[in-house]
Amino acid sequence: MYNKKTKRIYFDYAATTPVDKTVIDAMLPYFSQKFGNAMSIHFFGKEAEEAVDKARETLADFLHCKSDEIIFTSGATESNNLAIKGVVKSYWANPPAGGWKPHIITTAFEHHCVLETCQSLEKDGLAEVTYIKPDREGIINPLDIKKAIRKNTILVSIMYVNNEIGTLQPIEEIGKILKSYPVKSDDHGASKLKAKILFHTDATQAVNYFDCDVEKLDVDLLSLSGHKIYGPKGAGALYIKKGTPIRRITDGGDQEFSLRAGTQNVPGIVGLGKAIELVAQNAKRETKKIEKLRNYLIKKVLQEIPNSKLNGSLKFRTPANANFTFKDVEGESLLIALDMEGIACSTGSACSTGSLEPSHVLLALGMKAEEAHGSLRITLGKDTAKQEIDIFITKLKNIIKHLRKISGKVLEEYYGLK
Amino acid sequence: MYNKKTKRIYFDYAATTPVDKTVIDAMLPYFSQKFGNAMSIHFFGKEAEEAVDKARETLADFLHCKSDEIIFTSGATESNNLAIKGVVKSYWANPPAGGWKPHIITTAFEHHCVLETCQSLEKDGLAEVTYIKPDREGIINPLDIKKAIRKNTILVSIMYVNNEIGTLQPIEEIGKILKSYPVKSDDHGASKLKAKILFHTDATQAVNYFDCDVEKLDVDLLSLSGHKIYGPKGAGALYIKKGTPIRRITDGGDQEFSLRAGTQNVPGIVGLGKAIELVAQNAKRETKKIEKLRNYLIKKVLQEIPNSKLNGSLKFRTPANANFTFKDVEGESLLIALDMEGIACSTGSACSTGSLEPSHVLLALGMKAEEAHGSLRITLGKDTAKQEIDIFITKLKNIIKHLRKISGKVLEEYYGLK
Repeated sequence: MYNKKTKRIYFDYAATTPVDKTVIDAMLPYFSQKFGNAMSIHFFGKEAEEAVDKARETLADFLHCKSDEIIFTSGATESNNLAIKGVVKSYWANPPAGGWKPHIITTAFEHHCVLETCQSLEKDGLAEVTYIKPDREGIINPLDIKKAIRKNTILVSIMYVNNEIGTLQPIEEIGKILKSYPVKSDDHGASKLKAKILFHTDATQAVNYFDCDVEKLDVDLLSLSGHKIYGPKGAGALYIKKGTPIRRITDGGDQEFSLRAGTQNVPGIVGLGKAIELVAQNAKRETKKIEKLRNYLIKKVLQEIPNSKLNGSLKFRTPANANFTFKDVEGESLLIALDMEGIACSTGSACSTGSLEPSHVLLALGMKAEEAHGSLRITLGKDTAKQEIDIFITKLKNIIKHLRKISGKVLEEYYGLK
Repeated sequence: MYNKKTKRIYFDYAATTPVDKTVIDAMLPYFSQKFGNAMSIHFFGKEAEEAVDKARETLADFLHCKSDEIIFTSGATESNNLAIKGVVKSYWANPPAGGWKPHIITTAFEHHCVLETCQSLEKDGLAEVTYIKPDREGIINPLDIKKAIRKNTILVSIMYVNNEIGTLQPIEEIGKILKSYPVKSDDHGASKLKAKILFHTDATQAVNYFDCDVEKLDVDLLSLSGHKIYGPKGAGALYIKKGTPIRRITDGGDQEFSLRAGTQNVPGIVGLGKAIELVAQNAKRETKKIEKLRNYLIKKVLQEIPNSKLNGSLKFRTPANANFTFKDVEGESLLIALDMEGIACSTGSACSTGSLEPSHVLLALGMKAEEAHGSLRITLGKDTAKQEIDIFITKLKNIIKHLRKISGKVLEEYYGLK
């Protein structure tokens, strides 16, 4: 929806979404009327607990699991930290005889909260980690996961949809492969596999558009976040399949089946529940609408802007995402110029904004550092209108022409080149 | 405020408070209008970042520190986990030559999120911990802290106000003692003290009523929570004095000066800021009013109920708290009976509700298990009215009479005693 008053266009729905009005309405009573602590055993507590339980059931229905397999957290970053560190912590709480170090498989283009969690475990000597590279289209090959399995592999963590380039990963296929472990026969050196391999997926960017049935996906752990799905910031969840060996990483009270201490954020949890309810109701219709707009956007950009390129597979991709590289254009300059024209996009994850590093996602795809510096991520949402895309294309054309002229001049002046 | 319609009385403000209307109004625009991700570099992001910065300044003013010494978290449990584990993590990131294990001093009656954090560090072999007992009045003797200091003591963590019995701890005095370390002279065996001793206080229950000037208190770390001060659940903060050796415990993006990864909960942070603003404006007036009501309540209970006893010092106590033991009355039965009459109180911390253990706080005061089972916590708030206390006293008298009759009968029937 193009805001005529502010003349601003929001194309950064992957960074965060506005909270849906229905969600706000659902949350409001829990701030000052039904404000109890969900752990209190009196009326006010029970009222809050019932709301938390209802949200838990909504999430369980959506993910096709039991409600006591849902843990509410403060967001996907915490969920991902809990999933990975919690499994490793459980391992070290009862290390098997022989004292082997556990091994984790993840990808080179995960969100920072998975990557840095894995790196911190490596640094602390608590785990070995293999980082699998996607192909040039931004897709992980399930066979690469299979090949990476070692005797000490205890966990595989693969994102469902990449947050920068929007590519869809073959979670179901990987789930099937992992299900067959531990194996008895000699298979890729895993014949003496010492533990069941747990499978975690960060579904933060997938929930709006893809099936998150944990049984179909064959995952043991799944993370999601409220504020990417028109729900509130500060609310997320982790699905933990019953029987999964995991320990909490935040110590304290007995909340969330003793797997996450801290007073439950009741309004946030209620809002997350309502947001999931809306996804379940509207996903199909919205997916179609958004995909159509996104395809129009991609077509127009590639048509109208010379030397432009779409990053990542078009086929295996979330309908909301477009990610381009424009030759001889620096991403951050482009972003700032667009912002000055009232259009909000991003170069990649909001979490690493300000960093001067080129996108680790694009590097993982095999792009060179200077190319990876020049990307633009446009992510659409349920309020996006065709008119906004047309305005964007017109402005983008002018800006890129201008930036290329400058960059040409700079080259000319400094190096006598053109 | 006595709710005539529901006929319900809320006496559990220490478990959680209703969000103030002014706070809700401050938060609302950040859900769906100014909804940006505070890390995004475009207009929507800057708008959110400005709100976060403003809240940070409000907290810094309140605590008398610099705004970049404030880290926003999901609540006090996370703040306490970060303070304690973060300091220990920093120690182990660069352990000094000789490889000594760090030592922490805390109290036996801290909130579970401090106690269990310390216990988990002990279990993981990362720290030694001394748990200091309060006196029978529920006050920690600063000399006991001094005596407990070892050469390897790196952190002291003492709550400002106890959450169950409301007793005020001599934080300033302890701060002064710790400031003099490391010492050159031979002093309590600490002559070869190997590190500066950091001082952390969990101020969750203190913020409403006591001075939280971190300079006066001489603390390096201070935790607080939104939902105990008429702000939102899911929002808290940790003050970290500049230069404090600490590492983050949640890995991921660069939010909060790289000390706490995860998209900032902008509405929650804005709400926390507004709640602190209200405390700064109204604390003195409210403290007086609430203390008067609380003193009336204590006087009436001790007068009207035979064999009743106030737990914890009356002099060194938050104005909002009363905690009683009634002879021959089991706390949970009393709680349930009061709840059926529309009065919400608690036996202790909401975080350990459902636990059959006697209160660790009352045990730490030297009470016997059966006595510690029989406590009732009444915590008042800014909406409490005298009428509510009068209703409470009348109902409490009847309930206790009834419960004592039953317990007498039970004793008679089972043991032939009376």
